[in-house]
Amino acid sequence: MSTQTPTTQTLPTTSKQWNVIAKGQDGFDNLRFSEQPVPALGDSQVLVKLQAASLNYRDLTIPLGTYPFPTMPGVVPGSDGAGIVIAVGRQVTRFRPGDKVITLFNQEHIGGPLTAAASGTHLGGARHGTLRSVGAFNEQGLVHQPESLSAVEASTLPCAGLTAWNALHGLPGHQIKAGDWVLTQGTGGVSIFALRFAKAAGARVVATTGSPEKVAMLRRLGADHVINYRDEAGWGDVAKAFTGGLGVDHVVEVAGPSSMAQSLAAVKVGGVITVVGYVAGAGREQPGFLDCLLRFCTVRGVLVGSRAQLEDMCRAVDANPEALRPVVDGQLFTLERAREAYEYQWSGKHFGKVCIVMGNSASLGDDTDI
Amino acid sequence: MSTQTPTTQTLPTTSKQWNVIAKGQDGFDNLRFSEQPVPALGDSQVLVKLQAASLNYRDLTIPLGTYPFPTMPGVVPGSDGAGIVIAVGRQVTRFRPGDKVITLFNQEHIGGPLTAAASGTHLGGARHGTLRSVGAFNEQGLVHQPESLSAVEASTLPCAGLTAWNALHGLPGHQIKAGDWVLTQGTGGVSIFALRFAKAAGARVVATTGSPEKVAMLRRLGADHVINYRDEAGWGDVAKAFTGGLGVDHVVEVAGPSSMAQSLAAVKVGGVITVVGYVAGAGREQPGFLDCLLRFCTVRGVLVGSRAQLEDMCRAVDANPEALRPVVDGQLFTLERAREAYEYQWSGKHFGKVCIVMGNSASLGDDTDI
Amino acid sequence: MSTQTPTTQTLPTTSKQWNVIAKGQDGFDNLRFSEQPVPALGDSQVLVKLQAASLNYRDLTIPLGTYPFPTMPGVVPGSDGAGIVIAVGRQVTRFRPGDKVITLFNQEHIGGPLTAAASGTHLGGARHGTLRSVGAFNEQGLVHQPESLSAVEASTLPCAGLTAWNALHGLPGHQIKAGDWVLTQGTGGVSIFALRFAKAAGARVVATTGSPEKVAMLRRLGADHVINYRDEAGWGDVAKAFTGGLGVDHVVEVAGPSSMAQSLAAVKVGGVITVVGYVAGAGREQPGFLDCLLRFCTVRGVLVGSRAQLEDMCRAVDANPEALRPVVDGQLFTLERAREAYEYQWSGKHFGKVCIVMGNSASLGDDTDI
Amino acid sequence: MSTQTPTTQTLPTTSKQWNVIAKGQDGFDNLRFSEQPVPALGDSQVLVKLQAASLNYRDLTIPLGTYPFPTMPGVVPGSDGAGIVIAVGRQVTRFRPGDKVITLFNQEHIGGPLTAAASGTHLGGARHGTLRSVGAFNEQGLVHQPESLSAVEASTLPCAGLTAWNALHGLPGHQIKAGDWVLTQGTGGVSIFALRFAKAAGARVVATTGSPEKVAMLRRLGADHVINYRDEAGWGDVAKAFTGGLGVDHVVEVAGPSSMAQSLAAVKVGGVITVVGYVAGAGREQPGFLDCLLRFCTVRGVLVGSRAQLEDMCRAVDANPEALRPVVDGQLFTLERAREAYEYQWSGKHFGKVCIVMGNSASLGDDTDI
Repeated sequence: MSTQTPTTQTLPTTSKQWNVIAKGQDGFDNLRFSEQPVPALGDSQVLVKLQAASLNYRDLTIPLGTYPFPTMPGVVPGSDGAGIVIAVGRQVTRFRPGDKVITLFNQEHIGGPLTAAASGTHLGGARHGTLRSVGAFNEQGLVHQPESLSAVEASTLPCAGLTAWNALHGLPGHQIKAGDWVLTQGTGGVSIFALRFAKAAGARVVATTGSPEKVAMLRRLGADHVINYRDEAGWGDVAKAFTGGLGVDHVVEVAGPSSMAQSLAAVKVGGVITVVGYVAGAGREQPGFLDCLLRFCTVRGVLVGSRAQLEDMCRAVDANPEALRPVVDGQLFTLERAREAYEYQWSGKHFGKVCIVMGNSASLGDDTDI
Repeated sequence: MSTQTPTTQTLPTTSKQWNVIAKGQDGFDNLRFSEQPVPALGDSQVLVKLQAASLNYRDLTIPLGTYPFPTMPGVVPGSDGAGIVIAVGRQVTRFRPGDKVITLFNQEHIGGPLTAAASGTHLGGARHGTLRSVGAFNEQGLVHQPESLSAVEASTLPCAGLTAWNALHGLPGHQIKAGDWVLTQGTGGVSIFALRFAKAAGARVVATTGSPEKVAMLRRLGADHVINYRDEAGWGDVAKAFTGGLGVDHVVEVAGPSSMAQSLAAVKVGGVITVVGYVAGAGREQPGFLDCLLRFCTVRGVLVGSRAQLEDMCRAVDANPEALRPVVDGQLFTLERAREAYEYQWSGKHFGKVCIVMGNSASLGDDTDI
Repeated sequence: MSTQTPTTQTLPTTSKQWNVIAKGQDGFDNLRFSEQPVPALGDSQVLVKLQAASLNYRDLTIPLGTYPFPTMPGVVPGSDGAGIVIAVGRQVTRFRPGDKVITLFNQEHIGGPLTAAASGTHLGGARHGTLRSVGAFNEQGLVHQPESLSAVEASTLPCAGLTAWNALHGLPGHQIKAGDWVLTQGTGGVSIFALRFAKAAGARVVATTGSPEKVAMLRRLGADHVINYRDEAGWGDVAKAFTGGLGVDHVVEVAGPSSMAQSLAAVKVGGVITVVGYVAGAGREQPGFLDCLLRFCTVRGVLVGSRAQLEDMCRAVDANPEALRPVVDGQLFTLERAREAYEYQWSGKHFGKVCIVMGNSASLGDDTDI
Repeated sequence: MSTQTPTTQTLPTTSKQWNVIAKGQDGFDNLRFSEQPVPALGDSQVLVKLQAASLNYRDLTIPLGTYPFPTMPGVVPGSDGAGIVIAVGRQVTRFRPGDKVITLFNQEHIGGPLTAAASGTHLGGARHGTLRSVGAFNEQGLVHQPESLSAVEASTLPCAGLTAWNALHGLPGHQIKAGDWVLTQGTGGVSIFALRFAKAAGARVVATTGSPEKVAMLRRLGADHVINYRDEAGWGDVAKAFTGGLGVDHVVEVAGPSSMAQSLAAVKVGGVITVVGYVAGAGREQPGFLDCLLRFCTVRGVLVGSRAQLEDMCRAVDANPEALRPVVDGQLFTLERAREAYEYQWSGKHFGKVCIVMGNSASLGDDTDI
């Protein structure tokens, strides 16, 4: 951990940043890189020198035009970010220059249930996000970084990490506990976080993958059982059998219509299926809501989580730094080359979170410095 | 309230009862009436002289062969019942002769979440039900009748009443509270109970119906707004508009695929849709699970409720006897003519619960005597 | 972000206000009235023309020096307030000029559980409160007034109202529901709100008082049973007997050591005693924590409640405007004469909330105008 | 309903057992050992050949006459037991001969909150307990043993284990989660279980002890920090400092009045103190209930837990067999010498649970055989 002095004398006057200048057919070419002036800091705002960001599937869909929610024209993309406070507005009380912070996805989802109003304050969509060198955020929309993580690692938490945490901890009466069975799907960011949070909570995990080479990785991350769903047409029943026949307590459902029927086969009476992806548009082939009655289960859609949950999660990471260290893909990208990060994630070749580093390219050599 | 003396000297040796002797094409002709010996009472059993039963849609589907869960061959039908204790086994501690009782639907769902084991102990399906003059039940599967109700009224509580109660009170973190908005659908038993429980809790209700003549009835029962869904193709949006645009907190979803899309239109971010019917088999046309993500709502299938919930509900009825008096259809049936009750409910001409009375036909003249 | 210009034509440049200039022996003479300039409005602030405030016992203890928490030197007193927005900072999104608002007690308790940080943001103590003609508040610390209330009525909600709401609705797993039994103590603000919220939720209430003349008032407000605690030394047992012997589900404990033993006698196994007063310092005579084990009950200290709860409560008021109209004492005070309001409340002669009106004295004649 | 004939070839006709023949001054001499006939098995009962029992502090207080709840005259003592099913009544469906089982403390606390009725069904007090070679229990009052434990280990779960589990997992809205801080007190059975359950859930633990030699043991069991409370008068503040100053989320309070003030010093705003002991009678010196207001914490008395919780806990043990293996004191006792076990536990020389083995003395040589 470095001992940065909060040298406010040298505040940057410009920010290098990406903007989504259009949506749709031009794909990631809708992302434009430029240098822009930094606006005057608001009284309640915190100026953050961003150090790292991580990409999420939703970030890809915004320039592609398939994201199902409204976004601000010309928005700075980036749902996730980690950085260092370099200045604070005159009414700010939560942070001081030098503090290491991460961003909150829905900037106004402070605590309690999600509201419609808060659901429209998401970074990188409704509000300017993290793919910039410097950004101002309301002090309520930031939390302190876990002490045990680098900036790159910490940048993976706000979106994928918190979604997984919320899936397992967020439904009253159904919070994960030791001995529960959790079904995770694939090796995307949310799924891997869910696997690790489940293991840290003393639960048991059945993970699925379609790649034989990822089986061993999932086991190394703690999965008790791994199913190659290409080999097991009825993998929901296979998962249920692993539990002794009663079914899993939690499904973290990410993959869309084809998996939902299997999730319903796997879930126990009274269990919970948390839908964390929005691979929608395939409504006709998916199992219907009414089938859930026949399992007496609960199906819950979540949109990341609240600041209170993010703080809880950061604390959990610091309490279990090895068990919960985020899995970052080996390939890092500079801010200037962020478009390549989009393409890399789109290719599906990654394992773990795809991250972008805001320093100079030299910094890519040693993750622990940033 | 009568002052029955528990005259155990004259215990009946036979029971008049219905049995479901087959399922399917013969419809309600699969119901057979006969007189059978009463078996020896088990140590933990309570012998109940049944006084009233009420019918539920699921009762109709069992002889019709469309009930989606396994049932016991030859089962005595009847999910709901009220009666008087006439004898107790030697290890019984919860009841004494003379106690007025109602039955618990899932006989082993005592408290806490439903389990797979408890879900297979439902009266009138997995276990012998209430369409008989005398029946033995494990003492754990009965509760005391509310004091403010007649036997006929009380007989409507165990299935339709408790399902509505569970829908509104049963999901931790989402229990109904004053000021909430509730959407109910139609005039079936569960829907009317949900309307009344919602009003008793200080909530506001939007009710739907397809019959102009039922609009006034629903308003009399307390509905703040009534929508004729035949007049309003997008009645989900209409319901949402009544709430000021944020959407309803709770939907009690009973009617199946065509209503589900409207329920999703009506529900608020973070709201709950409780699916209480099992009008399944129409999976292809219903909105899919994944659409719930886009509303960030929770969809929950329930199977009636627990004994602890039934006791809570009975207490609520006694605390609010006028507001919560069950709505019983004017047409009562004797036990011998129960098949006609099935046909009457199947015709859809009823309003309120269709009930069966176990006494002689004279008793039908005055509900308050039984 | 919109560029609202915070200019309504006649923004006040000064505020008439009280300040607590000292604490302790001089009592309410520590309150000083003056006219002060209105500071420049912060970007995230809302300027409110206050119209009414209500007093709470804690407000009295601050100048008296017996309030057990730290306060800001020279603080503007007043925990509760209602007013109208007259200007908004350039980053404000939640309010517009003309909106009617009430204040949030702990300005940063937005949702979810209380945190230590949020517990130090209370109006009239840690931050400048409501006894002033004009005040600026962060937009996060205000909510919309219930439409069905006057400003005076609405001003009673933020502190006493929300404390009662939180007591009954705020503990997961123990939220009030129809049929519950609630024990309230006396005729203070929190107690009367608790009585009314309990009745609106379909619960039953046992209320206590030491004044024979208040018995009828409590009955009129809906109490099912009223106990004169001066007549019944063991009034906890009397309350328990009213419930049929099982005990009350909720006690709203306000009165301190002598009542706590009775509350423990009254509460049911698994019940909740919410301690809403801080009449501390009498530790030696009170029943100890360990006695709660013998009742297997839960004792919970609350500090008002969150903004999410305040919004829920306001919605409940609008849904049940007659049942939940706040009880305001007949004697109103102008801002200039607020010190007399302190003395009046200290005298104990009031029934209902003691309120202060910021308009001219003419406005006192017609509550519904303000 | 099956017609299992309860006849394995060699059912015992007598049971060796202890009875509490008096209470008070004669202390453990009030325990009497004898051989008694086994009564006819009830229809809903399961006959269990007991293999092991463990002692709890409450077991000691019953013959001593200091247990604060009523007990049945002549009761067979023993709160905890593990054994094997040797016969089942004709209506039993949950178990078959050969099943390994453990007992439920409150025999009728099946699920959901504790009720007054269920609180009076505790083994070894209100109902005959486990210090016998053979015993009949209602089938609802037993659960399957964890597969990963020996009978001796499993016998420690029903009382101390479940109390700790309930303390950490049982309060809705406050269930333990990764990253939480837990304060445990001493090395009694409940405290050690709490320490281990907390660590298995990813939490952090501050443990206290008065014995320097137990510090290392507590660290080996996973405690992050150990405080010798004899060295640290203000050990509550020391515990709070370990958490970074915010305080602990959970205190498992066992030790009585002197510790309660420290627990209040250690607990965070919004935290929970679960009172699991009943070292009452010292009310005058303990901090009062009202002090909890000043911490805005919740204090909760628990009485062991429900069958649903016991099943959850057993599943957690099997999922984490090494992390959650019960700590059994090295000294085992035969049933005949159970009185010596009482004396040994009373001496305070043990570490871990004191257990009694029902086989012959040879079995004491190898715990894993039983």
